[in-house]
Amino acid sequence: MTRARLRDLGITVGHLPPGRFNAITDVPGVLVGHCTLIYDEPRVARTGVTVIVPREGKIWTDQAFAGYFSLNGCGEMTGTAWIEEAGLLHTPIAITNTNAVGVVRDALCAFPMEQQGEAGLAAVSSSWAGALPVVGETWDGWLNDIAAFHVRKEHVFEALRAAKGGSVPEGNVGGGTGMICHELKGGIGTASRLVNLDDARYVLGALVQANYGARHLLRVSGVPVGRELSYEKVPSPWSTPPPAAGREGAGSIIGIIATDAPLLPLQCKRLARRAALGLARVGSIASNGSGDLFLAFATGNHLPAGQLRPYALTMLPHDRLDLLFEAAVEAVEEAILNALTAAETLSGWQGRTAYALPLDELQRIMARYR
Amino acid sequence: MTRARLRDLGITVGHLPPGRFNAITDVPGVLVGHCTLIYDEPRVARTGVTVIVPREGKIWTDQAFAGYFSLNGCGEMTGTAWIEEAGLLHTPIAITNTNAVGVVRDALCAFPMEQQGEAGLAAVSSSWAGALPVVGETWDGWLNDIAAFHVRKEHVFEALRAAKGGSVPEGNVGGGTGMICHELKGGIGTASRLVNLDDARYVLGALVQANYGARHLLRVSGVPVGRELSYEKVPSPWSTPPPAAGREGAGSIIGIIATDAPLLPLQCKRLARRAALGLARVGSIASNGSGDLFLAFATGNHLPAGQLRPYALTMLPHDRLDLLFEAAVEAVEEAILNALTAAETLSGWQGRTAYALPLDELQRIMARYR
Amino acid sequence: MTRARLRDLGITVGHLPPGRFNAITDVPGVLVGHCTLIYDEPRVARTGVTVIVPREGKIWTDQAFAGYFSLNGCGEMTGTAWIEEAGLLHTPIAITNTNAVGVVRDALCAFPMEQQGEAGLAAVSSSWAGALPVVGETWDGWLNDIAAFHVRKEHVFEALRAAKGGSVPEGNVGGGTGMICHELKGGIGTASRLVNLDDARYVLGALVQANYGARHLLRVSGVPVGRELSYEKVPSPWSTPPPAAGREGAGSIIGIIATDAPLLPLQCKRLARRAALGLARVGSIASNGSGDLFLAFATGNHLPAGQLRPYALTMLPHDRLDLLFEAAVEAVEEAILNALTAAETLSGWQGRTAYALPLDELQRIMARYR
Amino acid sequence: MTRARLRDLGITVGHLPPGRFNAITDVPGVLVGHCTLIYDEPRVARTGVTVIVPREGKIWTDQAFAGYFSLNGCGEMTGTAWIEEAGLLHTPIAITNTNAVGVVRDALCAFPMEQQGEAGLAAVSSSWAGALPVVGETWDGWLNDIAAFHVRKEHVFEALRAAKGGSVPEGNVGGGTGMICHELKGGIGTASRLVNLDDARYVLGALVQANYGARHLLRVSGVPVGRELSYEKVPSPWSTPPPAAGREGAGSIIGIIATDAPLLPLQCKRLARRAALGLARVGSIASNGSGDLFLAFATGNHLPAGQLRPYALTMLPHDRLDLLFEAAVEAVEEAILNALTAAETLSGWQGRTAYALPLDELQRIMARYR
Repeated sequence: MTRARLRDLGITVGHLPPGRFNAITDVPGVLVGHCTLIYDEPRVARTGVTVIVPREGKIWTDQAFAGYFSLNGCGEMTGTAWIEEAGLLHTPIAITNTNAVGVVRDALCAFPMEQQGEAGLAAVSSSWAGALPVVGETWDGWLNDIAAFHVRKEHVFEALRAAKGGSVPEGNVGGGTGMICHELKGGIGTASRLVNLDDARYVLGALVQANYGARHLLRVSGVPVGRELSYEKVPSPWSTPPPAAGREGAGSIIGIIATDAPLLPLQCKRLARRAALGLARVGSIASNGSGDLFLAFATGNHLPAGQLRPYALTMLPHDRLDLLFEAAVEAVEEAILNALTAAETLSGWQGRTAYALPLDELQRIMARYR
Repeated sequence: MTRARLRDLGITVGHLPPGRFNAITDVPGVLVGHCTLIYDEPRVARTGVTVIVPREGKIWTDQAFAGYFSLNGCGEMTGTAWIEEAGLLHTPIAITNTNAVGVVRDALCAFPMEQQGEAGLAAVSSSWAGALPVVGETWDGWLNDIAAFHVRKEHVFEALRAAKGGSVPEGNVGGGTGMICHELKGGIGTASRLVNLDDARYVLGALVQANYGARHLLRVSGVPVGRELSYEKVPSPWSTPPPAAGREGAGSIIGIIATDAPLLPLQCKRLARRAALGLARVGSIASNGSGDLFLAFATGNHLPAGQLRPYALTMLPHDRLDLLFEAAVEAVEEAILNALTAAETLSGWQGRTAYALPLDELQRIMARYR
Repeated sequence: MTRARLRDLGITVGHLPPGRFNAITDVPGVLVGHCTLIYDEPRVARTGVTVIVPREGKIWTDQAFAGYFSLNGCGEMTGTAWIEEAGLLHTPIAITNTNAVGVVRDALCAFPMEQQGEAGLAAVSSSWAGALPVVGETWDGWLNDIAAFHVRKEHVFEALRAAKGGSVPEGNVGGGTGMICHELKGGIGTASRLVNLDDARYVLGALVQANYGARHLLRVSGVPVGRELSYEKVPSPWSTPPPAAGREGAGSIIGIIATDAPLLPLQCKRLARRAALGLARVGSIASNGSGDLFLAFATGNHLPAGQLRPYALTMLPHDRLDLLFEAAVEAVEEAILNALTAAETLSGWQGRTAYALPLDELQRIMARYR
Repeated sequence: MTRARLRDLGITVGHLPPGRFNAITDVPGVLVGHCTLIYDEPRVARTGVTVIVPREGKIWTDQAFAGYFSLNGCGEMTGTAWIEEAGLLHTPIAITNTNAVGVVRDALCAFPMEQQGEAGLAAVSSSWAGALPVVGETWDGWLNDIAAFHVRKEHVFEALRAAKGGSVPEGNVGGGTGMICHELKGGIGTASRLVNLDDARYVLGALVQANYGARHLLRVSGVPVGRELSYEKVPSPWSTPPPAAGREGAGSIIGIIATDAPLLPLQCKRLARRAALGLARVGSIASNGSGDLFLAFATGNHLPAGQLRPYALTMLPHDRLDLLFEAAVEAVEEAILNALTAAETLSGWQGRTAYALPLDELQRIMARYR
């Protein structure tokens, strides 16, 4: 089945224009890399890791302001204690499966040391927070034999080395490989928005790993697509009961927002909170078993690690944030939908299958609702 | 113009059934009282105070678990330090205009003393937190001469004495009298949902004072009503620029959620967080100038003030909360829409007018989107 | 009895040097004003209000970054939702008794309107947060007939007009008039510290309204003075049981920290958190009934209200904060002790008496511990 | 040099009596296990892992209420998003070095699967949060070649299998092996307190991994031991500058509090916050580079994983918590001091040495201050 992005289907959400690639990579310097693990022997792998690399990798030594928000904390995101405390992001961000958070986190600690030897170690050590990387997760144990602990340090390094700008592969890639969303095949999705303030233009991008939600709640641009999409046409992946019966809405979503606007840490936190509103537009109720964790970072200020003299900063007044808030809501909404329209039907562990959102049917439903 | 509730117009939101009155008063023991101030002399008043009285007033001595969430903190809600700390609500909740938070708060301190003399004082003093009442606000200074400080202690007492169960007046009443929402006349709205878990039935109700949002963002059950509702047909209240130009989306919303389910404080906080998702469904982006503050309380456990021996409690497992989460999202969404369909066009200070959402036009738009 | 400041007694705490007045007013532009209410008719008043006015009053239009921390939330501090959200302080700070929070808060809303008419109103309205003032409280209902609601708007205005720099009256003044601390007479105290970083010198000051704690926990510079100070020599004020028996440690403390260092909001929050460490040095365990609420603000950056173009800011790197942290700990510790050494024995409501810490006895105990 | 516990030296802190072992293991069902790694080839190891196992290991299926507090977030503690959200601890707690957080975390995910096969997997999967273990860290890269990533899954399993009740090895053991505290050899320490409330007796225990602080700040029972302990007598470990010059106070402390009292999650959080006060008594200012993270859990209620019907709970009223608060402050204070008096001088990576607190000198100093 040929897949597409939401806009390719003639469906738009929101009011603001997207950036060139309609991706988080539209934010200058932001790179994305995937390492995708799909194999059946010796144990079934449908998993991987996705990295978001700010400042083309210079984030290790030129930190960025960041903020964090947990809409529903049934999940893990490492590194948040320092982000809550200091508002500083100083490593790439990785997203993977639940059981791989640790190995991915330690790999992010190891990367600068191994890549650059003493220089790398020194770079990390120049900040006391040098070893507090940010790694999020969602659970892919339905399609992936998660107890096999497939992800290894080398996979993280591979994703880091593969990271690049431009258009971003979506759907069954990287950390999103085995994910399920609204009882359809989910995964990685991204989108972006442009915001003009006076003579300045800012870019805001979002990337999500979407793995949450019950079918009946799914809305596309306000249209109750999930309710219209019968289980006869598109079966639920839960052909047998999911691990804990009756929790078809569980799962998680990790959402990362990036912008080049000159925002302070509290303002990044405000952006992260708007991710919840974008998620709500797609229909989520943030179910109990969902780890709905969001992080936003802003590259508009430079914060060289180890600098002892005062930083000179720029700050957008709070009064100018509404368009960026709207951009964050829209970008998260569209990123989730891009994950759904990009992901392909996938079979995996124990012969289970998660079915892709059928694009023709989606367009039919949308047309019925004008 | 005859006004209506959303369901009277044949429009429903969500999946769960409402309670008997489709109001927060469906939660047993929860009363609502309004004191509405509308007069033009000596200075223009379009304001008031609304109270939510749990446990038919016994809340002073039989506390309830509660939780708080600020989606966007450009507003005031007193009493939250103790709710964050201890998870206990021990007074009625009041909602009023921005400049009246103080007088209403002190009035809630004074009420038990004045009503019951020494006994009232003793009741309050039996808990150290006896004088930390919860009062929220939104800003009505467009229609109301807010600098006149109209609200007085007696008005709070009047609302408390008027508090009752059953159907709740909505729209231009109490604290909601002068409010504006999505550039239409806003105010007080309420709704409820019933949730069956095994052999237990729980009620969840929401009440909002809605005073936020830009017109173009308004959605009703997913339909972009705001975009369809032209300014030619229904002018914006900002016929002249609002106090700070270009911030048409500002304003605030206070949302209160009540349930009789046996929830712990953290679970109430989880409910409060879902209010944000209901708000997002109606279109809010939580704009910078909006005080979007939510409080949820649960009466399923009894917590007599001053008790020194351990309390025996019941707690719904987190795994059973999804339906209550969905109920919270839906009830808040419908409560806001009820505020819009109930509120009538109102003129006030300096001859300004906020226009009601025209119900016939609403129905026409909804029909066009099936 | 002649009272003194701690240093006048030859007792010092900490390592860093104090500023000229060893007061929060050492921070340039910070003023303090008290309005003290002591009378017996028609009802007994031992109360008042204290205001801290940043930027010599220009805080209404030139905001300051701020951060908040609740060590134990059995208390009230209004305005914190916006400070948590935006990190901005835009009004003077007031401290009063529990039942007067409301009237003082509304008075701070009214002040610019009444003082400056339309201009004042415009100033406040230029920011959406213009009417979200910060008011904290502690409970003086043992010496003060708190149910008489003595504090009125005029008293707040009086304190605002009396606000000035230089040395600050301590002990039984302003909001601290009727307070009790470690079962001794408490009240207002202040202290400051100087911090040199390279070629810059920063001032950090603290002001507390101290009304917490059990006697046996009191420590002065590590010496267990409370344990050594027998109830025979200095009776407890609880000659009859306090309102709720067995809670001799209850009460509260409000602590305000000011600095002229160029700190961001999160950094102010970090300072506020250090107040807890200063409090711990004096012996507090943050008992259940204590509202231990702290706010820190930094005037090192200017944030004109209503500005729409980006602010140019300076930020001390987090790595340079340790001396300011130490300054905050020390200043809060010494401010509390100054409250105790300055406050005089006071009798009040129902003939009750709170006894001052006897300075000669304090010196004898300190000498015994070298 | 023979080492001792603080009380063996005739020094006590606080007022409350300790439990039988004066250790966190005094809390019924709480076990502690260490795996200590000390070797020089192929790369220098001075590190390890310590586990705290509630409910004798049944914590995987019988959860406990818990609460978290970050005094200063320059550190990592995984699993806190769920603890903040739901207040539930469902795994053992591990403490290790900074670079080993990941491997230890994933090992805690793997343990029930590997130990119990399908049954273990089912146990974990019965709760959506089954794979969100709690792992904290402090940085031992001064004595330990931390870039060698010594800790492996097997070491975690070894610590888990070694976990037992009774007296707890302290000092240079487990995660504490290579730690430095107040510029002296630090490591693991523990203590406990007994609290009588009416006819009930509760136990509260603390365990810390102490790795923070400047020498001059160290206080023992209020006595300024650090100031009195000259660098001539006991050199600083920083014979050469520490990784970032001038940050002698950096480092971190992880503190775990356990109690058998029937506390709710918010009450556990309140206990966790008191750890900061115990830390302050020993002199910490929570320096910028310190990860001062605290977790408290309470076993007084049983919460079987996967239960769908309501839990019956018991809750100590907030009004009864003051003695438990005092117990938490005292236990944390004494646990840190036990780490210092137990830890022995240790040399490690690059020939560096951290010197133990000399016990005879400690006693001499204490005697001089009575």
